[in-house]
Amino acid sequence: MSALQAPIGLAFTMGDACGIGPEILVKLWARALPTGLVIGSPEVMQRARSFVAPNWQGEPLPEIVALTHPAQWRELPEGVMGVWAPPGMPVGLLDAPIGQIDRRAGLAAAASIRAAVRLAQQGEVGAIVTAPLHKEALALAGESYPGHTELLQAEGSLPGQPPAPVRMMLMNDQLKTVLVTIHVGLRQAIDQVTLDAVLETIQITHRSAQQWGLNHPRIAVAGLNPHAGEGGLFGDEEIRIIGPAIEAAQKLGIQASGPFAPDTIFMRARHAPDHPGEFDVVVAMYHDQGLIPVKYMGLDHGVNVTLGLPFVRTSPDHGTAFDLAGTGKADASSMHQAMRMALQLLAGRTASGG
Amino acid sequence: MSALQAPIGLAFTMGDACGIGPEILVKLWARALPTGLVIGSPEVMQRARSFVAPNWQGEPLPEIVALTHPAQWRELPEGVMGVWAPPGMPVGLLDAPIGQIDRRAGLAAAASIRAAVRLAQQGEVGAIVTAPLHKEALALAGESYPGHTELLQAEGSLPGQPPAPVRMMLMNDQLKTVLVTIHVGLRQAIDQVTLDAVLETIQITHRSAQQWGLNHPRIAVAGLNPHAGEGGLFGDEEIRIIGPAIEAAQKLGIQASGPFAPDTIFMRARHAPDHPGEFDVVVAMYHDQGLIPVKYMGLDHGVNVTLGLPFVRTSPDHGTAFDLAGTGKADASSMHQAMRMALQLLAGRTASGG
Repeated sequence: MSALQAPIGLAFTMGDACGIGPEILVKLWARALPTGLVIGSPEVMQRARSFVAPNWQGEPLPEIVALTHPAQWRELPEGVMGVWAPPGMPVGLLDAPIGQIDRRAGLAAAASIRAAVRLAQQGEVGAIVTAPLHKEALALAGESYPGHTELLQAEGSLPGQPPAPVRMMLMNDQLKTVLVTIHVGLRQAIDQVTLDAVLETIQITHRSAQQWGLNHPRIAVAGLNPHAGEGGLFGDEEIRIIGPAIEAAQKLGIQASGPFAPDTIFMRARHAPDHPGEFDVVVAMYHDQGLIPVKYMGLDHGVNVTLGLPFVRTSPDHGTAFDLAGTGKADASSMHQAMRMALQLLAGRTASGG
Repeated sequence: MSALQAPIGLAFTMGDACGIGPEILVKLWARALPTGLVIGSPEVMQRARSFVAPNWQGEPLPEIVALTHPAQWRELPEGVMGVWAPPGMPVGLLDAPIGQIDRRAGLAAAASIRAAVRLAQQGEVGAIVTAPLHKEALALAGESYPGHTELLQAEGSLPGQPPAPVRMMLMNDQLKTVLVTIHVGLRQAIDQVTLDAVLETIQITHRSAQQWGLNHPRIAVAGLNPHAGEGGLFGDEEIRIIGPAIEAAQKLGIQASGPFAPDTIFMRARHAPDHPGEFDVVVAMYHDQGLIPVKYMGLDHGVNVTLGLPFVRTSPDHGTAFDLAGTGKADASSMHQAMRMALQLLAGRTASGG
């Protein structure tokens, strides 16, 4: 990777131009001086700066510079935001009304993501941090992918190969949790907890954690039922499915254990200065099992990471917040966390040569 | 209530004589100087003191005094533990082997609970704090009740009346959560989330919170599915069941709201010095939805409260820990929390005259 010789940069996608993404990127640049570039529209970023400026009281807001080639970010002084407009950016993007669903914003968001994947594949950047997009705008733009994850998965696959399986991880400074099932009803989620799905989640988690620099990641697997089924008394998925999946993973040399009682395993895995966690990451069976503990201490501390891609990808765990867009009031904390977590995962990856 | 004129005492039941209950009560007396009495066996409590003493480094361990009548606790100096052996205590209790399931221990545990209920009904104590019992020992003793809650429910009912509906609440200093369903598999729990069950839970929660002194408790109701169903996209229980139950509660004048996305409602209701919670209590649909956030910050901070009884009842959120019994090593933190929470709930009840 060329990135190993030069400073490792991050590609920030602008997200939906009508949402809060551009504004929180402006604030991020002021407070955290990121290394890397924004992929999106320089005009939209300039407008976002004007939304933020009137009530801004922090460090100076960044000067915004349009790049003619993505690699130019390396030549900019610290604190200057380089914005590269990739191929496929639509015309009239500034006419898309703030806070509304617009086809042009969907086109721009998709073009930014595709370009970011190319840069990551070329080693021009080490990781992608994505500002929020709006799924309906993406659909209006003719994209068949329902969201970020699927689009990244398709774009990140090798030519001629089927998309690699991916999983959603939620993380903050204390906890990492990877989900077996995500955006389906709870009944359907239970149906989707199969031996293959659990085993694949454990394997993806294992490979990803090794890339972060953990040679022997300690993976805890949560049960599905209260008390992990209490020996079959409260449901048998632990006996039929989750236990066998853990055993299969162990036979592959993976340090997986469980199934553990869901109500205490996240507490046990929590890392804090006074509380060393017993595990590096927890595999959770369904959306809220994993997200309740990650979010419990505060929304701005949750970061979404896509595992299984050939590069690191993080995003803040909030949406486009159309009601706030254009006011300059959106909070950049979660985006800041997404950047921090990307650098943290990347540091391990670089250190381990992965 | 006579308890309003005199100091309000707590009745601590001894729990299973072969478990850690007696030892943690001894430690509790040393560290917290409770007001009230232990209902159980003076000999077993004396033995527990001898288990704790060799390695004890805290405040002086209590002198243990056998009471001939429960009201005598009021005459004891602070720090002296009065233990009253109620009717129905078995002979040979000291012969029951430590750390093992024993019929005599089950008999003693049940007798202690029955006596505690009487004392609470007479106003001799304001609340009951129960040390852990062992369900199999209770069954060996011929009790048809599977655990504490059912026994308390039956004993606490008015003569000739069916047992009042009860609900389990988990609480710590930051969060109170009341469960619609408890110890069943997750599939079965979903089946048990009915309009009646949700509405009854909201009503019990409302009445209980008023007894703690909250005139207009703010009750948040969690959804069942991710994002509370996202408008029916991820399951329709919010539309068919939980929403209508909330509306029915609102028509009864209850300040209930929701259904809220489960992954953020506990965070929103969390009370901390830097984070005033938006709600007083959260109604959770299933065991782990409510218990994951309560336990996330540490096991010793979770207390179990039974709502719907005509008196306050709390208990530590752990079991008999037979493997630790007799070693003097069991941690009294959760029992201490159970005592603190009982006093906190009682203070509101007294203040509101409830």
